[in-house]
Amino acid sequence: MKKFINRIDDVLTESLTGFAAAHGDIVQLGAEHKFIRRRELKRGKVGLISGGGSGHEPLHGGFVGHGMLDAACPGQVFTSPTPDQMAAAAQAVDTGGGVLYIVKNYEGDVMNFEMAAELAEGKVARVLTDDDVAVEKSTWSIGRRGVAGTLVVEKIVGAAAEQGRALDACGALGERVNQATRSLGVALSSCTIPAAGKPTFQIGDAEMEFGVGIHGEPGRRRVPLASAREISLQMAEAIGTDFGAQRGACLLLVNGFGGTPAMELYLMYDSLRMQFEKQGFSIVRSLVGNYVTSLEMAGCSATVTRLDDELVRLWDAPVHTAALRWGV
Amino acid sequence: MKKFINRIDDVLTESLTGFAAAHGDIVQLGAEHKFIRRRELKRGKVGLISGGGSGHEPLHGGFVGHGMLDAACPGQVFTSPTPDQMAAAAQAVDTGGGVLYIVKNYEGDVMNFEMAAELAEGKVARVLTDDDVAVEKSTWSIGRRGVAGTLVVEKIVGAAAEQGRALDACGALGERVNQATRSLGVALSSCTIPAAGKPTFQIGDAEMEFGVGIHGEPGRRRVPLASAREISLQMAEAIGTDFGAQRGACLLLVNGFGGTPAMELYLMYDSLRMQFEKQGFSIVRSLVGNYVTSLEMAGCSATVTRLDDELVRLWDAPVHTAALRWGV
Repeated sequence: MKKFINRIDDVLTESLTGFAAAHGDIVQLGAEHKFIRRRELKRGKVGLISGGGSGHEPLHGGFVGHGMLDAACPGQVFTSPTPDQMAAAAQAVDTGGGVLYIVKNYEGDVMNFEMAAELAEGKVARVLTDDDVAVEKSTWSIGRRGVAGTLVVEKIVGAAAEQGRALDACGALGERVNQATRSLGVALSSCTIPAAGKPTFQIGDAEMEFGVGIHGEPGRRRVPLASAREISLQMAEAIGTDFGAQRGACLLLVNGFGGTPAMELYLMYDSLRMQFEKQGFSIVRSLVGNYVTSLEMAGCSATVTRLDDELVRLWDAPVHTAALRWGV
Repeated sequence: MKKFINRIDDVLTESLTGFAAAHGDIVQLGAEHKFIRRRELKRGKVGLISGGGSGHEPLHGGFVGHGMLDAACPGQVFTSPTPDQMAAAAQAVDTGGGVLYIVKNYEGDVMNFEMAAELAEGKVARVLTDDDVAVEKSTWSIGRRGVAGTLVVEKIVGAAAEQGRALDACGALGERVNQATRSLGVALSSCTIPAAGKPTFQIGDAEMEFGVGIHGEPGRRRVPLASAREISLQMAEAIGTDFGAQRGACLLLVNGFGGTPAMELYLMYDSLRMQFEKQGFSIVRSLVGNYVTSLEMAGCSATVTRLDDELVRLWDAPVHTAALRWGV
């Protein structure tokens, strides 16, 4: 295993300390590294909290700040945060408007967020993201997995919360965005969890995993590596089919899993864009880069969110976080 | 070679087409993909142009836009752009204020930019970046190599040009920023140029290249992989020594080469920050991420730029590009 680390047990805390130091104008760390919170809270605003296993950076800590999350709870690599972390985050950022948890649909995350909700004193609601069309149930989840579309939910609900929308309305909006969102990922390589010390899975020199999860979980099938054009076609077909007859204006997010160069991501964007437009989608907003990663895995995912005028306005609203920033 | 590509010959143009489509609000492509230019030019402003081999994205195309570059000329992967490209870019963005080329110090780039300058009709000046302290001359350069510090030169001179500073003054500022900047990189893995189809160099499972260049060129020494703390110490020593007695306020850029996860970059930032502060630097600005990459190479570099109040103001000035954005 070749990584920039010291002791395995210190990887997460040292990384979080560095993150908080580099972005001290935006965030601060909770006690015992339980959460990353927004430095300046807004009184009465709905507190937006997400979290999950680490190793997907910038998700979620990189999305804490004005117009997006109020706190993020980082578990160990690919391991759910504890109920204790989530409850502490809620206590820190609930300024009277209640707390909305945005939870990716994995068994551990769902269970721990439920326990945290029981511990909470104020009003608590939850949005579950399950945008991955690859598999209907997986080794990690009952039902579909929450993947890169979670970013879109966090951005749009974050804008609404910033504008003063109430807890129930933020929850309903989050459900609506999740339902308007579909993703599919492809992996060319595995990744190595520091504590494991060896790759999560084996993959041949001429193979790819179609429909991979963001922890390297198996997808739909192990297939021979194809051209970018052929891969894009299959990704777009999987997503388009899942949308049924729904088409129209959309956001296209081409997300890198960590080990794929920007050149290839933009090449894939070019190809995916054409495929989705051929299907009848009109791409009105785009995002390309490493946003929901799997450590150093080579691969990428496509996410489409169908947008109406309200969702476009909320997507465009100012955001000031470590990883997404515009309008401020 | 596992990459998201179609024909090798089309990698660059397809990637550029995707980039221009994803960021159509900021940039547009020149004819025959010769350059990426800023969509809105400012009459009479000094035109800032950079370029170099592709494979370092987001450098340089990701830095085209308000407050930074007016154009970027992408060569093939790790190959200098042609004089023809640079001359075409100058013609496109010179609105009367003359053109300043920011050139990384590699033989091919320097020669081709000189030929482009001869072709130019308007006033032309040049800033050469050579911030890499690793080696005094390399397989690719006479004198030190230009690496991640180039980003800092582009950002600061870009802000000055945006504020109306004249050509000579922008050139002098660029020289000053370059002289205030030092970098050093470490690689844990190689990278694969699409046209080569195999890794640029071989490296053992327990080795790292200390002082590596951004094309995978050899550095100071091939050494056993050490802890993040030990690596940071050595990187900071190399940079600090090169600064002689100069200390004070600085920017610290921890740059990923493409294949290293954000978790590790922030862990390295945490460690490097402590090392530089121990040396007497005061880190007043920070940037952490994949900005000057070497395709999918695992590794990172540290860059320190000594900042006075003027440079801090110019660093903080609004920028709106694909890869750096704040204040707008």
